Amino acid sequence: MKLTDIYWHLRSDIAKIEKELESTIDANHPVLKKASIHLLKAGGKRIRPVFVLLAGKFGNYDIEKIKQVAVPLELIHMASLVHDDVIDDAELRRGKKTIMSKWDNRVAMYTGDYIFARAIEMTTNCEKPEVHQILSDAMVEMCIGEVEQIRDQYNWNQNLKIYLRRIKRKTAILIAVSCRLGALAVDAPREVQLSLYRYGYNVGMAFQITDDILDFIATEKELGKPAGSDLQHGNVTLPALFSMKNDEVLRSYIINIINGDKPEKKEMEEIISSIKQAGGVDYSFEMSDRYLNKAYKELENLPDFPAKESFYQIAKYIGTRKY
Amino acid sequence: MKLTDIYWHLRSDIAKIEKELESTIDANHPVLKKASIHLLKAGGKRIRPVFVLLAGKFGNYDIEKIKQVAVPLELIHMASLVHDDVIDDAELRRGKKTIMSKWDNRVAMYTGDYIFARAIEMTTNCEKPEVHQILSDAMVEMCIGEVEQIRDQYNWNQNLKIYLRRIKRKTAILIAVSCRLGALAVDAPREVQLSLYRYGYNVGMAFQITDDILDFIATEKELGKPAGSDLQHGNVTLPALFSMKNDEVLRSYIINIINGDKPEKKEMEEIISSIKQAGGVDYSFEMSDRYLNKAYKELENLPDFPAKESFYQIAKYIGTRKY
Repeated sequence: MKLTDIYWHLRSDIAKIEKELESTIDANHPVLKKASIHLLKAGGKRIRPVFVLLAGKFGNYDIEKIKQVAVPLELIHMASLVHDDVIDDAELRRGKKTIMSKWDNRVAMYTGDYIFARAIEMTTNCEKPEVHQILSDAMVEMCIGEVEQIRDQYNWNQNLKIYLRRIKRKTAILIAVSCRLGALAVDAPREVQLSLYRYGYNVGMAFQITDDILDFIATEKELGKPAGSDLQHGNVTLPALFSMKNDEVLRSYIINIINGDKPEKKEMEEIISSIKQAGGVDYSFEMSDRYLNKAYKELENLPDFPAKESFYQIAKYIGTRKY
Repeated sequence: MKLTDIYWHLRSDIAKIEKELESTIDANHPVLKKASIHLLKAGGKRIRPVFVLLAGKFGNYDIEKIKQVAVPLELIHMASLVHDDVIDDAELRRGKKTIMSKWDNRVAMYTGDYIFARAIEMTTNCEKPEVHQILSDAMVEMCIGEVEQIRDQYNWNQNLKIYLRRIKRKTAILIAVSCRLGALAVDAPREVQLSLYRYGYNVGMAFQITDDILDFIATEKELGKPAGSDLQHGNVTLPALFSMKNDEVLRSYIINIINGDKPEKKEMEEIISSIKQAGGVDYSFEMSDRYLNKAYKELENLPDFPAKESFYQIAKYIGTRKY
């Protein structure tokens, strides 16, 4: 099953959000306009808006109200990707050139700032002060997450706790908030909002762990960038972190890469295979499953609307996705 | 009279804020650490903390409470300067190399993001939800201001309204908020807070207009960068805006610079002299005075504490400052 099959029934509302993203991002400034459109066209799964829409099914579903939170949430996500690519010096994302490589770091900086500002500008229009509060807290967490990413980059001496805290801020919080705000926007009961928040948090953690696994085990074609990219950009993720502990030789290889060694493609393949042998991938999958099981459990608390099945399918998809 | 003479009596509390700025900004990441320290050492008038301290004199003055708002306010200001320098491609600020020229745009981007994140992180600790709200609104306005600056850069076809809205977001709001939050932090009465906000807004507008005037009339030594820098970075400010309307020949010269002409030093001097002759500088001083008069008027509403005299002196200083 493809991810898009799961939310096929939402396609007309997703199209509305896509249109709103386009008009919100529209700029007079020529470079800003081109860069933003490039970013929008580069696509993405739009998984945050999907979570918002599904969560909206637990209240008085109204696409106009839902759009008001779905659009800023996706914009915040997009803005953070543009700045992340600068930090990671990333040439490609989803097989497309990043803004920092198509233009330069300057354009990437202000395009990210611009999209971020448009997101918060749109948020200020929201009637519910709680939405405003939750969104601005999420932005704070994501900002701090970016800083943690900079701080931890090129640092091989990390532990599980640091890794989990970083991916929480980088990914899980925004997905959790997407689930919560979708429900809040249409006045779903508070217990439902909080269950959905916890579901989103756990799914988000599993999602990022899977992302970090795929960076090692998927093909270059599937990833849209070379395998092992994270390590080569100085980002130590769970599979490497775990296997470093268990294999001294592998450990010194990984430290060298993080310290700037540029391994040949063949050498990188061997390191990836050692990471698998040392159990880094299996351990990470187990960790991801643990979060997914917590997510399933949260769903049990929710009323039996059809959207519940979609939430279940998405969590299941994340556990088995190949790219 | 020098600006520092006016707040000489606050020097020990300013030193406390300086120390707190240093410890807040401290980072583990080596480049981040060096860049932040460079920025801190490059100085600045710390005028926003001064406004906070003075405003604090209208309530139960408590430096511990005041620090909690003064530090994030100065950090937000510093972060915005770092990103502004990337947008303006500015080599120098106050005679010192900017982060983007000492390192590069990438470092400037993430140093700005880092300082911004530290500011909002510190804000979340604040007990008063109103402080949180006012500060985050100010950040939104400044973000939008940055976007307006990007949009209006290299665009000579502007009007007074666009200019005033931009400098409001770029400068006046943060000064207004500094005055208000200093009073709010120590529970000064609400009318006092609002009067101080309006005082700060008007002083802030006059401050930025004077800054924009000085870019044309001060010497390179006083400015710490060449005169006419704004124009050469594509930023159309009030003196140029006004004189373009009244002098067709000058207008075409200015349009050429904004479109990328790099004038010789001698040629720039002639253009500056034409701007003066066309009345651009006089008009801008009048506009600045208009805002200062409104600021004085706001002070009349305040109780007669000694801090009121300092506020008066600062406004007077802004009207006569040479750099």
